Amino acid sequence: MKIDLFDTTLRDGAQNPGISFSIEDKLRIIGLLDGFGIDYIEAGNPGSNPKDFELFKPAAGLNLKHAKLAAFGPTCRAGIRADEDESLRKIIDAGTDYVVIFGKSWLLHVEHIIKTSAEENLRIIFDSVKFMRENNKKVFFDAEHFFDGYSDNKKYALEVLRTAESAGAEAIILCDTNGGTLPDKIGVAVREVSKNINVKLGIHCHDDAGLSAASTIEAVKNGASHIQGTVNGLGERCGNADLCVLIANLQLKLNYDCVQPDKLKNLTGLARLIAEISNVAFNESTPFTGGHAFTHKAGMHIDAVNKLPVSFEHIQPDSVGNSRSTLISEIAGRAALLNRMKLFAPDINKDSRELKQVLELVKSRENEGYQFENAEGSLDLIILESLKRRRSFFTVETFKISLAEPFKAEKAAAQIKVNVGEKRGAVIKAEGDGPVNALDIALRKALTRFYPELKSMKLIDYKVRVLNSNAATAAKVRVLIESSDGGRVWRTVGVSADIIEASWKALLDSVEYKLSIDEGLL
Amino acid sequence: MKIDLFDTTLRDGAQNPGISFSIEDKLRIIGLLDGFGIDYIEAGNPGSNPKDFELFKPAAGLNLKHAKLAAFGPTCRAGIRADEDESLRKIIDAGTDYVVIFGKSWLLHVEHIIKTSAEENLRIIFDSVKFMRENNKKVFFDAEHFFDGYSDNKKYALEVLRTAESAGAEAIILCDTNGGTLPDKIGVAVREVSKNINVKLGIHCHDDAGLSAASTIEAVKNGASHIQGTVNGLGERCGNADLCVLIANLQLKLNYDCVQPDKLKNLTGLARLIAEISNVAFNESTPFTGGHAFTHKAGMHIDAVNKLPVSFEHIQPDSVGNSRSTLISEIAGRAALLNRMKLFAPDINKDSRELKQVLELVKSRENEGYQFENAEGSLDLIILESLKRRRSFFTVETFKISLAEPFKAEKAAAQIKVNVGEKRGAVIKAEGDGPVNALDIALRKALTRFYPELKSMKLIDYKVRVLNSNAATAAKVRVLIESSDGGRVWRTVGVSADIIEASWKALLDSVEYKLSIDEGLL
Repeated sequence: MKIDLFDTTLRDGAQNPGISFSIEDKLRIIGLLDGFGIDYIEAGNPGSNPKDFELFKPAAGLNLKHAKLAAFGPTCRAGIRADEDESLRKIIDAGTDYVVIFGKSWLLHVEHIIKTSAEENLRIIFDSVKFMRENNKKVFFDAEHFFDGYSDNKKYALEVLRTAESAGAEAIILCDTNGGTLPDKIGVAVREVSKNINVKLGIHCHDDAGLSAASTIEAVKNGASHIQGTVNGLGERCGNADLCVLIANLQLKLNYDCVQPDKLKNLTGLARLIAEISNVAFNESTPFTGGHAFTHKAGMHIDAVNKLPVSFEHIQPDSVGNSRSTLISEIAGRAALLNRMKLFAPDINKDSRELKQVLELVKSRENEGYQFENAEGSLDLIILESLKRRRSFFTVETFKISLAEPFKAEKAAAQIKVNVGEKRGAVIKAEGDGPVNALDIALRKALTRFYPELKSMKLIDYKVRVLNSNAATAAKVRVLIESSDGGRVWRTVGVSADIIEASWKALLDSVEYKLSIDEGLL
Repeated sequence: MKIDLFDTTLRDGAQNPGISFSIEDKLRIIGLLDGFGIDYIEAGNPGSNPKDFELFKPAAGLNLKHAKLAAFGPTCRAGIRADEDESLRKIIDAGTDYVVIFGKSWLLHVEHIIKTSAEENLRIIFDSVKFMRENNKKVFFDAEHFFDGYSDNKKYALEVLRTAESAGAEAIILCDTNGGTLPDKIGVAVREVSKNINVKLGIHCHDDAGLSAASTIEAVKNGASHIQGTVNGLGERCGNADLCVLIANLQLKLNYDCVQPDKLKNLTGLARLIAEISNVAFNESTPFTGGHAFTHKAGMHIDAVNKLPVSFEHIQPDSVGNSRSTLISEIAGRAALLNRMKLFAPDINKDSRELKQVLELVKSRENEGYQFENAEGSLDLIILESLKRRRSFFTVETFKISLAEPFKAEKAAAQIKVNVGEKRGAVIKAEGDGPVNALDIALRKALTRFYPELKSMKLIDYKVRVLNSNAATAAKVRVLIESSDGGRVWRTVGVSADIIEASWKALLDSVEYKLSIDEGLL
């Protein structure tokens, strides 16, 4: 049976403490979710904040292959006609084919929070859904706090659902908004609802009791065929159900049809990239997608896994794009590294001295805080080194930065002089927004005299991560730089206690990568 | 019904990637677990490593009030008599009254991993348990991979349990060692086992499918009365079931008797302290004990919680020693800000001019890239400003930084001169790892002459986030700083295109916050 996948990373996920997506972040995430095979993407609440509203215009231009975008918001307010409600207007103006309207299904909220009558709440729901239908929207109705409402007053909770159905909702989503309901209660309620409601049923769980995955699975087994969640379980309080965990469980263990089987291999990559864009540390203990999920530490486990992987692995790691590693052996990814090396040296095999050397270099850099997952440019330079093909393209003779004094209008400035072999360059000065920007401009200016092809190159992304941050400002930082020359895009990395030095290392690698490519070394 | 609590943080938890407990760490954790009311503590595997063996001597001297210590290890090896097995000897020598012996209950492991016959495996189990009984040990038998074994060969799996029972095991623990079994299968199997076995049944789950809490609860509902887990879910791969989550669910939602009700209030403190001792970053999204568990971000949620906490909280936060908080963010509204302002100005109401002014300031800063949900220190200064209570504590006259040249040994240096009112300071120089570190040291050195109370202050965390990063090195950065004076912890924020300036702003706020607190302004 096909399960509809509904992602709310950009809406409920944005309610995770510490998360703040820019419009660019959101557009990138929409693209990733679409590519992975998510069916519906709740992109934001246009009535609640202007940034969410602004998103829908560029999002409409994304030319998605599979996913449908949805705008989210509340029913109209008590005592207000649906067609006069500002928030509903904003939802319509967002311009999506699908909308999600949430309404109250727990009388406690009706009485104490929106402070209206049980009848008026039903009117609100009916009118809001109907108004959306009249504006040609397909409507998903989120029954907020459904399970608390059902446990409190079954009859009324079901009446809320019937009201939304009769007003034309395409699917009704049962929400455990406070995340406190136990899975068996959720299963029983979903089964009961499925006898009373004829439209598609969805489930939306939160992890406040650590049971969101189990509850979602129970709901599916009892009649829900639309699941809501977020990538990495981001969300208000303890977060939403982790869509990646749900998909892996439902598809691999219960044979539901969530995504094309070949897409499942992108699950780990999706989870890590979205953590990166969200700028949160990825939790390596995450089931299925975490770096520890198939990492074996106990000696007996390692011995057994070497004999027979199924002895200590509940699924095959590569079915979700993850991989096995063992903590006392060499780093994971030997095979991946071998594949990468073969691009430049087809004769390399798993016993080659060069492979061992790269492994050692990578390991020692990783101990310093480097990470090459998002920095293949820097990795390729290490490979070149072990193949004895790395070249020195220039030396830096002068390196000076003068800083802008905070709160003054002046800019930071850098002075650089580079030499290429016997040819000596001039001292080049450049100003920039901050020392790193000035350095970047000066370095490329200085080198362009010798290597005009660098003119086409520019930095397109720059990320800073503080490592072992409990050492505060003296902690190491890792800088990731993404560069492009119009055609190619590559990423490089630098690590140091000094952010300028870390940035400088990543900049040098970036320039060297471009020159190495152009010289045919890579 | 009383549920026996069995903690394996020190054994299975120690198999978490990245964890390495010293003997002192372990002794401290044993003391904490005992004080909290844990019934059994699996302290280590004395046969597998000398550090675990060494622990048991000092542990025996701990004078525990409630908990019983247990030593853990495998059954004897195939073809070896129990009384001649070295590992069993070490378990006895550990000197605990209780021991945990694990054996195979899945034929796949018997055949392919320990490579012996089904009969010899039963002999191994019987002899090992009996040998322990003969040495006056109370034996818990861990049926490793029980659920995989049960699904593969029910008859044999049950025979393993009966063998351990007939040899004198005091309790039999059913282990989902690979963490892949779904909760309903676990429930069915436990129910079936309870019909066949007369000793106490235990459950030991791993989180590889994100279902360990649900599976443990299912087992308890079907007959298990002994639960195994670790604090914060530490453990091999994705970790074990989180004992804190289990205790809160079983006691608060299902009325099982786990610990004395007053002890439950120590749950959050226990989780945080053990994370601290384990030297892992505490996951703030953890159910019940996490810093985000009762943190409300969406404006509508905050508004509702102010009216009636139960509207968005599944339990009372203080029942587990946690507390409610509300975040100031673009998603939140006026209600959260009002809550915060009332701390300093109890008379403020939702129509106050000061509230409007703070809202405007916050909104305009947010447009520049500021974020206050993790920076209440900076927010409080804005609130002080609108209340006209903000004070200027110093002015900066000289500000100079000389940078270290990359790849050279020298350090970055900062020169700062501050004046306080009419009093002029001297020029203070300081070196550091990078310009920000140097600046931080110099500023606090310069100010300590005037404000000696700043001596106790230090930075404990430093985070950098690049905003709209597609503008590459010229993009804005947001710096978040966490500071402490030994007692209090506060967070401040700075935003600029220049990372030095952004850090400087956050540093200035941090110092001003400390001084404002000490002067009674906050």
